[in-house]
Amino acid sequence: MRAATLRARCRRLRVIVTDVDGVLTDGGMYYGESGEEMKKFNIRDGVGVALLKCAGLFVGAMTGESRDLVDRRAEKMGMDFLVSGARHKLGALERFAAKNEFALQEVAYIGDEINDLELLGVVGVFFAVADAGPEIRKGADVVLKTRGGAGALREAAEVVLRHQGRLKSSLSEYLRRSKEAAEIENVHLFRSERGRKSRARTVRKRKP
Amino acid sequence: MRAATLRARCRRLRVIVTDVDGVLTDGGMYYGESGEEMKKFNIRDGVGVALLKCAGLFVGAMTGESRDLVDRRAEKMGMDFLVSGARHKLGALERFAAKNEFALQEVAYIGDEINDLELLGVVGVFFAVADAGPEIRKGADVVLKTRGGAGALREAAEVVLRHQGRLKSSLSEYLRRSKEAAEIENVHLFRSERGRKSRARTVRKRKP
Amino acid sequence: MRAATLRARCRRLRVIVTDVDGVLTDGGMYYGESGEEMKKFNIRDGVGVALLKCAGLFVGAMTGESRDLVDRRAEKMGMDFLVSGARHKLGALERFAAKNEFALQEVAYIGDEINDLELLGVVGVFFAVADAGPEIRKGADVVLKTRGGAGALREAAEVVLRHQGRLKSSLSEYLRRSKEAAEIENVHLFRSERGRKSRARTVRKRKP
Amino acid sequence: MRAATLRARCRRLRVIVTDVDGVLTDGGMYYGESGEEMKKFNIRDGVGVALLKCAGLFVGAMTGESRDLVDRRAEKMGMDFLVSGARHKLGALERFAAKNEFALQEVAYIGDEINDLELLGVVGVFFAVADAGPEIRKGADVVLKTRGGAGALREAAEVVLRHQGRLKSSLSEYLRRSKEAAEIENVHLFRSERGRKSRARTVRKRKP
Repeated sequence: MRAATLRARCRRLRVIVTDVDGVLTDGGMYYGESGEEMKKFNIRDGVGVALLKCAGLFVGAMTGESRDLVDRRAEKMGMDFLVSGARHKLGALERFAAKNEFALQEVAYIGDEINDLELLGVVGVFFAVADAGPEIRKGADVVLKTRGGAGALREAAEVVLRHQGRLKSSLSEYLRRSKEAAEIENVHLFRSERGRKSRARTVRKRKP
Repeated sequence: MRAATLRARCRRLRVIVTDVDGVLTDGGMYYGESGEEMKKFNIRDGVGVALLKCAGLFVGAMTGESRDLVDRRAEKMGMDFLVSGARHKLGALERFAAKNEFALQEVAYIGDEINDLELLGVVGVFFAVADAGPEIRKGADVVLKTRGGAGALREAAEVVLRHQGRLKSSLSEYLRRSKEAAEIENVHLFRSERGRKSRARTVRKRKP
Repeated sequence: MRAATLRARCRRLRVIVTDVDGVLTDGGMYYGESGEEMKKFNIRDGVGVALLKCAGLFVGAMTGESRDLVDRRAEKMGMDFLVSGARHKLGALERFAAKNEFALQEVAYIGDEINDLELLGVVGVFFAVADAGPEIRKGADVVLKTRGGAGALREAAEVVLRHQGRLKSSLSEYLRRSKEAAEIENVHLFRSERGRKSRARTVRKRKP
Repeated sequence: MRAATLRARCRRLRVIVTDVDGVLTDGGMYYGESGEEMKKFNIRDGVGVALLKCAGLFVGAMTGESRDLVDRRAEKMGMDFLVSGARHKLGALERFAAKNEFALQEVAYIGDEINDLELLGVVGVFFAVADAGPEIRKGADVVLKTRGGAGALREAAEVVLRHQGRLKSSLSEYLRRSKEAAEIENVHLFRSERGRKSRARTVRKRKP
């Protein structure tokens, strides 16, 4: 695909949808002897979501599983939606798009595995993570430099926003919002184990 | 070993057996101060199991330990069997094969460490993960490109199915089954923190 | 920036402030199905804190989140302070510096992401972790060789102390303190599973 | 140091002592919001301990911290001893050696950080993990190819046993012991989700 075409496709995008396991994570599934299950997400993808939302785009995730922890992570990242239990990705995306009145050409999807295969060539822009399977990497519009779980959504967000000409304005909006949210911090001062020289004393205080 | 021979050996395979620690995981064992133990598996190996089963093969794991979490993971991955507490792998495999009426030549085994040594040259095809010990890598029929915990079973599945000429049909069957399972998804729409432009409204809804 | 200038800037430093996610960690956020959240820190950064404190410097962390686990880790590492909930880093740092009577030129900051952008060129020395975003790496005074979560603070500590000409004295002080703290160890001797040759017997004892 | 000298030094070894954080782990310290702490060990180091013990050597760990999880891991690995709370490593090792009647020249130590510095040139053979600090790597007798947490003790065990001319006999003993321990395995057969072809039936059974 030529750069011009990719740019045109990116400019039509209104919705960014990401797979969960293998994209927001490295595919790792932690099983505990007590029954606990964990997944490892990356804070950088949260920055990606924030930048996309600052540009007015909609961002969500779609996964074949149903796990409360994914719900909590998606909400914490500031996502607009989560489609879980989507064992057939294409069908689920079509139903979701129809209900919310957007076209599949307006969707960017980030995927890694064969259950994402049917979305190739159907969505507006298909991003494959760097360590996606060969079939996926071959068919994708963009192969990211970042592996799943290492900030792949963050990289995809920059690609979309750069092609849309909105990267700088989105970044400014991000910094503006963080300024608005200021003055809520807590300061913890830990007691030292031993006496210290005078010069240091300006900083040290007891924990309130 | 020549490619022709490997192909012939792969064609005889009916059962795929994998080690757990070091193959389905990177060998990592998480110990918690509260007594918790965890292992990290990879969703891609679950896809590998699914593809093998779509081709009618039997898939299971064999481990020297006995851990409930491995039971749960094996069942979640859709495996057909799990042999745990198998401190002597060759003996355990021979007993299991005799009971279930298959020959060791019909078995592919994926291993990484010296407790797998005796299976070299005994099973039909021995796969070593990329980071297996030197003795294992040297004796293996196939050294995978993938490290333990990064989808090694997934890669081995593709090698077997390609040599059996069943990779495409298995993939089709996989997609057919995922379509059958459709329409069970849940849609979660998260409330935004702040007001948004009208264009976005088509997607946004409150969480039901 | 020329080495001479960096040296002069390092010599003015009195306070070392580090971001948490992406610097003390690799950005990973572990979510559990039971509601548990985890972060992975690195013991080497604890050594970095110790070396800086042995040289009389003040060390703390600043994060946009508020998590008890970060509190516990900061205290365990021997940090002097933690500023949490600092969604606007520059504002939070200015307030903290004013209250504790030090200038921003006396601060070294270690960061990785766009929420750290405004500190570039404002603090005395800005360190970027090896895997920081491109905007941060481009603007930083020093790009570390170490990635977030792999001991980046440890490396930054050595750079600062070397430029201040205090690395050796700090190391000596570290070893002196560890000697002072001696003779508190517990010895656990585990029972062997089987009989052992006589030569070994000098070491083996039962667990008390 | 010349190979001949290393060989002579290895031949005198009777006790193998390893640091914990940064050697048996990658230095990672997992902190949970509920107060949980975890460390990630590697099964391969357990194989290293087994091989050393099959050759009649004593194996233990020494750590500045005191954590139950390290106790449990050391015992599970089959270690002979654990010295915890050893904030001054040299002093702790001297006391332990005196009590158990061995010389420091009979000890191999595996370390990574400046709190191990004083053991350089004092123990018989000092092994540094691949990612140890520069001072440690520079002073070590052997720099391992393996990083902390990836099986460094396993690699050190092979170096020691090879130089002692005991690698093969130790491996044979390991396999002999695993054979002795046989016939304790449990077989779990998971119910399939759907009907299957007859050829498969020989393996499939219900979970008892």
